[in-house]
Amino acid sequence: MVDETPSETSPDELEGQLAAATAASRPWAEMIPLARAACLRAVADALDAASDELVPLAAAETHLDAARLVGELGRTTFQLRLFADQAEGGSYLRVSIDHPDPTWTPGPRPDLRRMMTPMGPVVVFAASNFPFAFSVAGGAFAAALAAGCPVVLKAHPGHPALSRRTAVVVEGALTSSGAPHGTFSVIYGDDAGRSAVVSEHIRAGAFTGSLSGGRALFDLAASRPTPIPFYAEMGSLNPVFVTRAALANRGAQILSGFAASFTLSAGQFCTKPGLLFVPSGTVSDEVFVEALAAHRSAVPLLNARIHRSYVARLTALRDHPAVRTIAADDQPLGEEPTPTLLATTVPELLDARDALLVECFGPTSLVVEYGADEELLAAAEAFGGQLAAGVHGEETDPILPALLALLADRAGRVLWNSWPTGVSVTEAMQHGGPYPATTAPLHTSVGPAAVARFLRPVCYQSMPDHLLPLALRDDNPLGIPRRINGQREVH
Amino acid sequence: MVDETPSETSPDELEGQLAAATAASRPWAEMIPLARAACLRAVADALDAASDELVPLAAAETHLDAARLVGELGRTTFQLRLFADQAEGGSYLRVSIDHPDPTWTPGPRPDLRRMMTPMGPVVVFAASNFPFAFSVAGGAFAAALAAGCPVVLKAHPGHPALSRRTAVVVEGALTSSGAPHGTFSVIYGDDAGRSAVVSEHIRAGAFTGSLSGGRALFDLAASRPTPIPFYAEMGSLNPVFVTRAALANRGAQILSGFAASFTLSAGQFCTKPGLLFVPSGTVSDEVFVEALAAHRSAVPLLNARIHRSYVARLTALRDHPAVRTIAADDQPLGEEPTPTLLATTVPELLDARDALLVECFGPTSLVVEYGADEELLAAAEAFGGQLAAGVHGEETDPILPALLALLADRAGRVLWNSWPTGVSVTEAMQHGGPYPATTAPLHTSVGPAAVARFLRPVCYQSMPDHLLPLALRDDNPLGIPRRINGQREVH
Repeated sequence: MVDETPSETSPDELEGQLAAATAASRPWAEMIPLARAACLRAVADALDAASDELVPLAAAETHLDAARLVGELGRTTFQLRLFADQAEGGSYLRVSIDHPDPTWTPGPRPDLRRMMTPMGPVVVFAASNFPFAFSVAGGAFAAALAAGCPVVLKAHPGHPALSRRTAVVVEGALTSSGAPHGTFSVIYGDDAGRSAVVSEHIRAGAFTGSLSGGRALFDLAASRPTPIPFYAEMGSLNPVFVTRAALANRGAQILSGFAASFTLSAGQFCTKPGLLFVPSGTVSDEVFVEALAAHRSAVPLLNARIHRSYVARLTALRDHPAVRTIAADDQPLGEEPTPTLLATTVPELLDARDALLVECFGPTSLVVEYGADEELLAAAEAFGGQLAAGVHGEETDPILPALLALLADRAGRVLWNSWPTGVSVTEAMQHGGPYPATTAPLHTSVGPAAVARFLRPVCYQSMPDHLLPLALRDDNPLGIPRRINGQREVH
Repeated sequence: MVDETPSETSPDELEGQLAAATAASRPWAEMIPLARAACLRAVADALDAASDELVPLAAAETHLDAARLVGELGRTTFQLRLFADQAEGGSYLRVSIDHPDPTWTPGPRPDLRRMMTPMGPVVVFAASNFPFAFSVAGGAFAAALAAGCPVVLKAHPGHPALSRRTAVVVEGALTSSGAPHGTFSVIYGDDAGRSAVVSEHIRAGAFTGSLSGGRALFDLAASRPTPIPFYAEMGSLNPVFVTRAALANRGAQILSGFAASFTLSAGQFCTKPGLLFVPSGTVSDEVFVEALAAHRSAVPLLNARIHRSYVARLTALRDHPAVRTIAADDQPLGEEPTPTLLATTVPELLDARDALLVECFGPTSLVVEYGADEELLAAAEAFGGQLAAGVHGEETDPILPALLALLADRAGRVLWNSWPTGVSVTEAMQHGGPYPATTAPLHTSVGPAAVARFLRPVCYQSMPDHLLPLALRDDNPLGIPRRINGQREVH
């Protein structure tokens, strides 16, 4: 059997790939949207066709079950087609045309035409926990290509054979659909990744992973002689707050939803609810254990590194004097952990926030008991930036306006009577949030708005029509939505 | 006479102002757009009414002439009213509503509603060269307030009395129009400015000034435990390229436009054309001197610090072995310099790019002679990020596609047969560019799109209508443009 593990990308190989990405920048950017969309659809079709080959590879390398992986691959190709539609639609170009106006203040306005233009080559760091949707052909790959930027993809070491095979499928589809050489390539190894972030060829970076990893790369990007935007999506605690009334009315349903959400895919989601706030004295440990019963199967985590990190973090949490254990692992944290549920109180949490407000990536969560509603608000105020935060409540709960305002100030997505796991790929999605959830609170990494990360505005002043990009010409040859003199263009 | 010079803001005063800004965040953000717009218009009205008092103060502190300052104040109040209109219009909220869809891929889509929400308190660093339009009540002030963010304004030391007086006018207008206490305050001194950038109260920063100053503050912002976006608009060379055919056909007109542009306001614009590329052997020094004749008056620069810096940079440029002088200052760089014109060639420029591709803020520019068109392209390729770059050409010049592509890759604004000075405040304007022109190539600091710097997206999932922000409710009580299920909402 051939060894499928790719070797680390050497500095020379890296330089070749980066130079090829730069060379591909202009032809890829200047491809008409229809042609670029066709390339994205070709990649989607090729991945769908390779499902029988890719899913078993992914299952072998990540321990995720085949049903989940089939769903994730479907999400990945759906996403590619959504970005293809968007590239064709052209609204993401945000075209705005202002005709000359001699009466403008404080002086005459010349002809000005503004549109978004691709940043240039982007380095994308794949995630461990979504071997398809946030990996080689994942969301940042699709968004950057749709924006018109070549992609240098740093593979995640957790699934190297899958990465290599996916890359072959993607490269084949891009080449046969007419994408220029250099539009896409994969690199392997942390050194190559760091070198790419500081390379003059690279104009932006995207990352999905840990806080420490994301912050280190963000710091590299910001300290370059020429800093570049670095979009790191990192850890999140995704706290969920249950009001007294909601627990009284729908306690069993809420606890069962919570158990299902924090144990989904062994808790290895960035949107796992890491804390559940409940009124003190209202739920016994037995009730929690019962709710958890349907989700107690032992599963291996993604890989040995993540398992080690989980054991270390869980042990620290569990052994903290402010924490007690509601449901322990069946075994002493062996190879295949079962879900663990811990508990504390709001005063203890606030006293030990540095120790307890730390993401524990894996099948565990922390129940936090609160007394008066003021305690709930004080707890909500203690959080930093989050991808998501939720409330289970009744519509007339008096605490809601204050609580929801606090959560909207801290989270990218605010949920009502639902759980943070499950992130729809759709226009209104926001998957992002203030630091430390991400390094770029203005952006999302899921949904069509994710292309904005890889586009910058350019304005053409008094330019003759035939020298303008197609999107800005008078007769609107691309047929895209535009604004003319501050109003929507009428066709 | 009372001493009008404000003293530096003490750490205690600063903390009080920052805390007040935080306290104002929610009430200011939750004010309905109509009310926030009324506050911005009240500021504009108050500034217009105070023109007779403010313009002489500005003239005394900046040496800029009254006509220019009256025009700049008009631009400033126009800008405030434009942002007020925008706040009311609501398109900047980018509302997107996706209804539940059980057939979505890979799983059912819940109700998702996304909108932009204010970041929170913003620190704004005023510029020296626009005492109104980029100062206390300038563009970043207007954009941040329109976005719903309180502003802590770091005054520029070049016009302290004007800053203090403007602040009194602005505070009066904001208070009487109902803005909450803390929505706006001014701080004085570099220590206070740096402390604000690293304060936990501050969520974003904006700056207009030098490369060294902007980069230092960007580095502070990026190295915080919780990094924040820092939008620094810094130096720019704004090169202008004249083709052989254009010079042959319209030489006198081009040279006269160039002389007027680089000497405007004594060359103290971030958009001053710092280099003019002309075909070698086509223009004699005498012709340049003649074109400059109408713009040779001696004027004092903004302040002593800028004068010192100008003398140092100009001396270094002028004495560089690759540079010769076409038109020298009338005197040995005295208090009131007259315009200077220097010259070099493309090969010399490329050899000495670190020394020659440096902004010289003041009334000087560098003429660069090129040989073959390839030399012109090589020169264009040597530039880093620019606010603007221009071409004077004939529409059939064969070099144009390659040259314009290079300039669009490097500049925020690409000009045709016009000059970079003069930046219209209008929707299609882009005033920004890749580093080192700015630290945030995705954004503009002029025009309505400038509000985007101070807004981040939040998505509400499955939220009951009455708990949603007004902008997201089913009946669209604010009457703003929205997208529903990927289509423009029809009223």
